[in-house]
Amino acid sequence: MIELRSDTLTLPTEEMIRSITNAKLGDDVYQEDPTVKELEAETASIMGKEASILMPSGTMANLAAIMAHCPRGSKVLVGNETDIFIYEAGGASVCGGIIYEPIKTQKDGRLLIEDLNKVFLNDPEDPQFAIPSLICLENPHNKMGGRVLPISYLKEVYGFAVEKGIPLHMDGARIFNAANSMNKPVRELAQYANSIQFCLSKGLSAPIGSMVVGSHIFIQKVRRIRKMLGGGMRQSGIIAAPALIAINKMDKRLAEDHSNAKRLAVGLSVIDGIECDISTVDTNIVFFQIDKEYYSTKEFIDLAKNKGLNIAELGSGRIRAVTHYGISSEDIDNALNIIKEILNETLC
Amino acid sequence: MIELRSDTLTLPTEEMIRSITNAKLGDDVYQEDPTVKELEAETASIMGKEASILMPSGTMANLAAIMAHCPRGSKVLVGNETDIFIYEAGGASVCGGIIYEPIKTQKDGRLLIEDLNKVFLNDPEDPQFAIPSLICLENPHNKMGGRVLPISYLKEVYGFAVEKGIPLHMDGARIFNAANSMNKPVRELAQYANSIQFCLSKGLSAPIGSMVVGSHIFIQKVRRIRKMLGGGMRQSGIIAAPALIAINKMDKRLAEDHSNAKRLAVGLSVIDGIECDISTVDTNIVFFQIDKEYYSTKEFIDLAKNKGLNIAELGSGRIRAVTHYGISSEDIDNALNIIKEILNETLC
Amino acid sequence: MIELRSDTLTLPTEEMIRSITNAKLGDDVYQEDPTVKELEAETASIMGKEASILMPSGTMANLAAIMAHCPRGSKVLVGNETDIFIYEAGGASVCGGIIYEPIKTQKDGRLLIEDLNKVFLNDPEDPQFAIPSLICLENPHNKMGGRVLPISYLKEVYGFAVEKGIPLHMDGARIFNAANSMNKPVRELAQYANSIQFCLSKGLSAPIGSMVVGSHIFIQKVRRIRKMLGGGMRQSGIIAAPALIAINKMDKRLAEDHSNAKRLAVGLSVIDGIECDISTVDTNIVFFQIDKEYYSTKEFIDLAKNKGLNIAELGSGRIRAVTHYGISSEDIDNALNIIKEILNETLC
Amino acid sequence: MIELRSDTLTLPTEEMIRSITNAKLGDDVYQEDPTVKELEAETASIMGKEASILMPSGTMANLAAIMAHCPRGSKVLVGNETDIFIYEAGGASVCGGIIYEPIKTQKDGRLLIEDLNKVFLNDPEDPQFAIPSLICLENPHNKMGGRVLPISYLKEVYGFAVEKGIPLHMDGARIFNAANSMNKPVRELAQYANSIQFCLSKGLSAPIGSMVVGSHIFIQKVRRIRKMLGGGMRQSGIIAAPALIAINKMDKRLAEDHSNAKRLAVGLSVIDGIECDISTVDTNIVFFQIDKEYYSTKEFIDLAKNKGLNIAELGSGRIRAVTHYGISSEDIDNALNIIKEILNETLC
Repeated sequence: MIELRSDTLTLPTEEMIRSITNAKLGDDVYQEDPTVKELEAETASIMGKEASILMPSGTMANLAAIMAHCPRGSKVLVGNETDIFIYEAGGASVCGGIIYEPIKTQKDGRLLIEDLNKVFLNDPEDPQFAIPSLICLENPHNKMGGRVLPISYLKEVYGFAVEKGIPLHMDGARIFNAANSMNKPVRELAQYANSIQFCLSKGLSAPIGSMVVGSHIFIQKVRRIRKMLGGGMRQSGIIAAPALIAINKMDKRLAEDHSNAKRLAVGLSVIDGIECDISTVDTNIVFFQIDKEYYSTKEFIDLAKNKGLNIAELGSGRIRAVTHYGISSEDIDNALNIIKEILNETLC
Repeated sequence: MIELRSDTLTLPTEEMIRSITNAKLGDDVYQEDPTVKELEAETASIMGKEASILMPSGTMANLAAIMAHCPRGSKVLVGNETDIFIYEAGGASVCGGIIYEPIKTQKDGRLLIEDLNKVFLNDPEDPQFAIPSLICLENPHNKMGGRVLPISYLKEVYGFAVEKGIPLHMDGARIFNAANSMNKPVRELAQYANSIQFCLSKGLSAPIGSMVVGSHIFIQKVRRIRKMLGGGMRQSGIIAAPALIAINKMDKRLAEDHSNAKRLAVGLSVIDGIECDISTVDTNIVFFQIDKEYYSTKEFIDLAKNKGLNIAELGSGRIRAVTHYGISSEDIDNALNIIKEILNETLC
Repeated sequence: MIELRSDTLTLPTEEMIRSITNAKLGDDVYQEDPTVKELEAETASIMGKEASILMPSGTMANLAAIMAHCPRGSKVLVGNETDIFIYEAGGASVCGGIIYEPIKTQKDGRLLIEDLNKVFLNDPEDPQFAIPSLICLENPHNKMGGRVLPISYLKEVYGFAVEKGIPLHMDGARIFNAANSMNKPVRELAQYANSIQFCLSKGLSAPIGSMVVGSHIFIQKVRRIRKMLGGGMRQSGIIAAPALIAINKMDKRLAEDHSNAKRLAVGLSVIDGIECDISTVDTNIVFFQIDKEYYSTKEFIDLAKNKGLNIAELGSGRIRAVTHYGISSEDIDNALNIIKEILNETLC
Repeated sequence: MIELRSDTLTLPTEEMIRSITNAKLGDDVYQEDPTVKELEAETASIMGKEASILMPSGTMANLAAIMAHCPRGSKVLVGNETDIFIYEAGGASVCGGIIYEPIKTQKDGRLLIEDLNKVFLNDPEDPQFAIPSLICLENPHNKMGGRVLPISYLKEVYGFAVEKGIPLHMDGARIFNAANSMNKPVRELAQYANSIQFCLSKGLSAPIGSMVVGSHIFIQKVRRIRKMLGGGMRQSGIIAAPALIAINKMDKRLAEDHSNAKRLAVGLSVIDGIECDISTVDTNIVFFQIDKEYYSTKEFIDLAKNKGLNIAELGSGRIRAVTHYGISSEDIDNALNIIKEILNETLC
């Protein structure tokens, strides 16, 4: 099976699995797991921030970060096409009494300063309005096709947030893909956010976990919230050991995933019955659509699956393919062949 | 001062004030205030619903209704330009752990079925998604200019809600204005919603309060939530007595407000430097804009105030004028003269 | 009917009702109701605090005050027999994400410093523990029999709160009864709390409402929360006008209620089959029990009601009688006669 | 270092670590991790319930279970000395809008039916009261000394819950210790609860995780809540593989921990200056106190640590020692010698 539904499905490397065997363990709720401590220190250093903390998932990483930033009854400004707003079950409203203010997302993943600014028009003294307390960006932007936000834009939004006196959180689930694609150290992107979360378990291939980074005081707040949500784990070194390999080694190989994604997009773009815009492929995510005259999206996905290719719909007939560790250029060529085959069959 | 900022500023009639003097009182938390009981029975009857309950405000009426309909962690679908989403401080997220899903509002106040439907596309078994549990409509729609939703549309959305298996709540803060403007009994509009809230203190001129109507079981839930929120009051008969006059008599005179609004809009539309679309004036609300070459919105409003006309900005340079009890056609003519004067002065 | 179930059932005086007729009204959500503004200024002055705000109920007054003091996820220390913990539907947990820490209540309504202190034993850095952020006292204490907390005790707890760096809120629903019973100005009691709420609609006989008092900044926060909860009302002058009479005149006559309560308690204490401790009657509340060999509590209450005396059970067989405006010493004597009659009938 | 602070500090066995190396992995958010699926099926079977789910911690296991059982605004009845109430940061109030009703805990960990029943006395129609929606028991009871609740008692409380129409959740963090100590299969205890959580990372020695068990529908709700809280993890097979060994093999050896605990308690009980009640040692937890004339609790713990014995205070001068995998009877003897030494030194 060529597994392209998501990079969350990536299996860990052998070296990662071996690392678990040798990991020094302790109870991380007592902050005594040496491997976790090493991971947290190393992560903070790579991201250029004071501190970091291991979380069981990206969902909790975003949720705890938002709760640490936003008081009860305030608004978080978040793109209407972001994972935070769509795929994280509304946790900030449920657990934090925080109101989502979804901002229109541009095709390239940006939120316009103009659109953000509208939310601030209101009189902050007027008790009718919930007060904005945080801006969230997603970089790269998943649903917009893995698009990378330009440094100039990050700088601009961060400047806007500073001007408004509120923090900026970056959902950088795939931030290492963005950095790799820009050929820049990740800390250069991270400097334009007060806090960042990134996933160890996507392109970086670790089995479990996400990291939140930020200031010491912020991470202390996140640690408190993590315990309350139930994200404090015991011998978490078994998660942290492969994570150390993920952050130290796996970022280098992301270029391969990006090149495979490009290869796939280019291949798709010339298949009759497939629509795929190559120009949007910044990282490891490819979106395309199947002409309804050939197949419904569901039919097409099922046929592909039967032939050994796993892809997924992400709403409104958009099909997503994500490259990752374990997917080679041959796999991409095979995937393309499978798709061609499926489309050819309709012609018989 | 010609007070057109809002119909919430309407003062009660003399008859209303007198009614308080004679009202039979009791403790409404014990459900022993006879005037409140009469008001609740009468309201239910007028609206064609099983039961109703008195609330201290429209904000609490909407909040308690939403909480009674929506379990924690579910989504309320609500127009992005509605009072519920913008002016009620995010209460459903704070007090209910409910997620607002703001739906694009059409110029005439409608939410497209197509846009509502998109929220339901997702797999209800997939725990990533918060589940929709309520649709809210605002009728007439304040920020869209007091626009009245057509019966055919109400029917359509209600049918859609039934199909999706979730209830529909109508924020009918000014529902009597809608009914009057359509020349229909209010119950004809109310039949297409599981619950409705309307304000006693807007066009109906009562000093305080809103009503929620719906089924017996629903109103029982609202009563419980009202107590928790602190909306259970004691000798509430002093609120209910004028409210009885409001629902029994004041709805008839709303045509006068609508005619005054039309008169104002027509007058404004021919003034140089003012932009006002007559065609949108369905009820007692008029929106217009001042040409920035003459004055900034703020300057214009301040000048008007100095000359005895009170109007207000409702975001993005839109000025709102609301007619109501106490505002005569002469007041409208005077208001128009004041505005003409202000604009003439710039020409000197 | 001699109505002794609660002082919330008190009907307003004629002067109060007249005051409504003459009240100057405005829209209090715009802070333009002159009568409300007068009430809020006058209340702050009487209580010796910077500011105050009108609320629709004591429940909302306590809820908004607790929410203004306590961040999400912190603990409010509150007596396990208080109205806040028992009769206010858990609002602080629902709307505020605040954890109630019920503290054992002494017979005289006090919470022991020792018991309060236990909650602080834990390491504040340890994320396992919710952090205490507020102490609440109830004075006088309803369920403990209307007991008044001594000034020396208020001072001690307030000192403890200051030492711990957290505020103290006083649920002074009947604080004027406490002050009257101590023959002290109410501000002398209020000085030992950061915020106080008191009810206009209990002993003070106004039809509706409660006041929260505190610092300017605190009251601003409460105002924001009040709007969100739906406690912002429009022409609230109809509530504020009788409230002004309540705070300016009605506190003087509370001695009469206290004397009637004493009269009732003394009378009850000598009736065979009734147990009533005179020594606990500090204010207008009398608790007593009926010997089960004569009647069950419910039977007794029903019999009394049939004979024209309304009293209520407040849990565990404790019967409560509350004196208030409208209850004369003759009513007390009649009530005693009714009770004697009921008990005599069993002997036939 | 003889580590007796907690059994959460237990390191995994070599077999557990090896099992990770060979575990088949998948993405558990997609419910495609075969090792997790095996663990969940096996756990349900052992506990005699329909279904089970892996959680990152006991805190989340309890939190999600409580949220699945209790609607917003309802009460969870929970012992005032339980881990749920004290050590889990109040999550049910924060994330669920649920009110904790702490019930007095008996010395043996039981909550009296009589005390539970008091909470139900109130009129369920009366909106003043939050409605009880769940009873939680802790078995064995940590803070009461690892006390095991008798089967007859479990049956009684479960019967009471059924009678009241609400479910019973068992915080069985160490339920296998209880079962082992009673020499009964764990399902015999589990049958008296609608849901149970137990920890893989305490006596069972797995590095991470807890399981919730219950009906299919209930576990589906918990799965939804788990995602929202951020407990959905990816290749969770690395947690599930050692967990399978934990539930299948490690329960048998708990008797050794219990015997060590007994050995420790007996040893302590005869040391001058130590107070330790042997009769309460049902499982692997020993509580004792140091005579303040010798040392303060803190001094004593610090001295022990310097000599290679790690123990901890659990509030009010109570010292806790917990036996677990990796602690032998020699370790116990050494621990006793260290304690004797410390006490002898004061005599010089």
